[in-house]
Amino acid sequence: MLAPGSTIGILGGGQLGRMLALAAARLGLKSHIFCPPGDNPGSHVCDSITLAEYDDAAARARFAAAVDVATYEFENVPVDCVAEIAARVAVRPGVEALRISQDRLTEKNFLAGLGIVTAPFASVDDAAALTQAVARIGLPAILKTRRLGYDGRGQSMLRTVLDVPGAWERVGASPSILEGFVDFEREISVIAARGIDGSIASYDPPENLHKDGILAISRVPAQIPDAIAREAAALTSRILTEMDYTGVIGVEFFVLKDGRLAVNEFAPRVHNSGHWTLDACAISQFEQHIRAICGWPLGDTARHSNAEMQNLISADVMQWSALAVEPGLCLHLYGKDAPRPGRKMGHVTRLFDKSGTLVR
Amino acid sequence: MLAPGSTIGILGGGQLGRMLALAAARLGLKSHIFCPPGDNPGSHVCDSITLAEYDDAAARARFAAAVDVATYEFENVPVDCVAEIAARVAVRPGVEALRISQDRLTEKNFLAGLGIVTAPFASVDDAAALTQAVARIGLPAILKTRRLGYDGRGQSMLRTVLDVPGAWERVGASPSILEGFVDFEREISVIAARGIDGSIASYDPPENLHKDGILAISRVPAQIPDAIAREAAALTSRILTEMDYTGVIGVEFFVLKDGRLAVNEFAPRVHNSGHWTLDACAISQFEQHIRAICGWPLGDTARHSNAEMQNLISADVMQWSALAVEPGLCLHLYGKDAPRPGRKMGHVTRLFDKSGTLVR
Repeated sequence: MLAPGSTIGILGGGQLGRMLALAAARLGLKSHIFCPPGDNPGSHVCDSITLAEYDDAAARARFAAAVDVATYEFENVPVDCVAEIAARVAVRPGVEALRISQDRLTEKNFLAGLGIVTAPFASVDDAAALTQAVARIGLPAILKTRRLGYDGRGQSMLRTVLDVPGAWERVGASPSILEGFVDFEREISVIAARGIDGSIASYDPPENLHKDGILAISRVPAQIPDAIAREAAALTSRILTEMDYTGVIGVEFFVLKDGRLAVNEFAPRVHNSGHWTLDACAISQFEQHIRAICGWPLGDTARHSNAEMQNLISADVMQWSALAVEPGLCLHLYGKDAPRPGRKMGHVTRLFDKSGTLVR
Repeated sequence: MLAPGSTIGILGGGQLGRMLALAAARLGLKSHIFCPPGDNPGSHVCDSITLAEYDDAAARARFAAAVDVATYEFENVPVDCVAEIAARVAVRPGVEALRISQDRLTEKNFLAGLGIVTAPFASVDDAAALTQAVARIGLPAILKTRRLGYDGRGQSMLRTVLDVPGAWERVGASPSILEGFVDFEREISVIAARGIDGSIASYDPPENLHKDGILAISRVPAQIPDAIAREAAALTSRILTEMDYTGVIGVEFFVLKDGRLAVNEFAPRVHNSGHWTLDACAISQFEQHIRAICGWPLGDTARHSNAEMQNLISADVMQWSALAVEPGLCLHLYGKDAPRPGRKMGHVTRLFDKSGTLVR
């Protein structure tokens, strides 16, 4: 167990790194953020910063020497960078979870290997393969780059055969997968943590609503039977254990119309759909991740309140002063400079007591 | 209203400054801490630091120029320092609240001027005056230095006349007051805020237990009739309005055996007995203070859970790993180096639902 006073290294300076650093501070831990120059909201709340590109070997060595454990706040940090740091200091979760989740095809094959249902998928390595994949998967379907896509980027929706020509080019003519649609009733996610001792703790799954490919709202509890919540937690446990994972993971599920669960994708990090835990639980997903990577016992995932988290995307953040006066609302702003389209600028959580009444 | 992205200047680098900086960060605000060199837990979580003595005029000018509003996290920051900064940038709460609360005699006279009951008191400026004061106030009584005392320091208990000789020397032979004892049933406090528009919002008063002159436990709700809670809030409002105060104040009350309220003292800052608001309310006292000094509307003070806050004093902090596994417990460690006697190293909050059941 890393003692209070130890230093957590965080690869990435975004809002997730920021909220991890704030959670670490609450436990008496210091944070050291490694990120390239730019608008890095995480860098305002940490004890030390390494401002460098991820391929800067000297910076990586300095960072590794300065921290007691390292983690990453986003899944697109280069595997090489993490592997090199992991040779010098523990990185949790490790290289393997990153390698799997960076590539949609690897991720889908990993899940299939565990017997976990996903949307139908096919590898697409060129325009000709896309035509074959469409023939096999059917339409509508969505073409996604295997790597570096998030929040709807690097994706092309194929509703009819008229959308197929040019789709390969629209996603950048890079290795991709075609995903079929599943007939789902709702989307939920499981935010769970695995400790260094293999113990696992899950929060109750929120129900998630997306808009333009970006999470808009997470509500907890989800309107699902307990058996489905338990099944989602059990599938998440298998994923965590198979990867010998340490830390928090976010696993997105489709609840199918026939009641089965399919995994959409997972992120080897704290997850946007778990932000409500900051305000509705004694121990947030951010503290839980810090506990796990420090080798501390996992915390209690009980929820004292029901919650609805709403993202503030781009210009939504201009409503901050109106939101600030809303009773029972917890305002979180990330300190980013510019509200570019699609950029997550903050979120709010509305708390309700367990009967559904707004907490006032 | 200061917009997100603005910089809050905080005089003092202790745990209160640290928790203010963390609350500011949640609202997208930056923090700049001014503190003398030393073990400054606030300095690990802020965007900028001015490490200088409070009488360093050049440092004060640089600090004032770098921040959009300033505040202080402890009442013993020199009035001169605050006055000079206040000539350059808004300092909230202002110089007046600091001037009053830095001197126990001025504070008692201020309260008496508002017709607020306090313990009987007498000014003691030398050993002879102490004898006269004892004759007037009676024993037991407590001799306290007028300035720079906190957490039981600079105090001498006089139980019998045998304790009187030497007491003046024991408190450092500096201007003091003798305070009589009041026959109280319990101690409560009001954590309240006054906005820049004069609006006032109070949290429900916690009941406080002290040990060796230091706060040990705060429990909310206090076991008091609603009428007493309302009266305590009303007295606090008068204090706030009289000082034309902006920010959070902590006012300590004795609930007398006859049901009346007497003010023990107040602190012109966030208060240890309000730490439970971090975990039991949508908006903590720290966020409330930041809102007030930024000219934002005050937040809702509703409590979603009942709570018991326990300070971790000195070696108590060594229990951190056992506390970390306790369900429903929120652990806060301040990141201080050395657990010296009497030093506040952290606190824990246990959350209960409003029926009194531990939140799990």
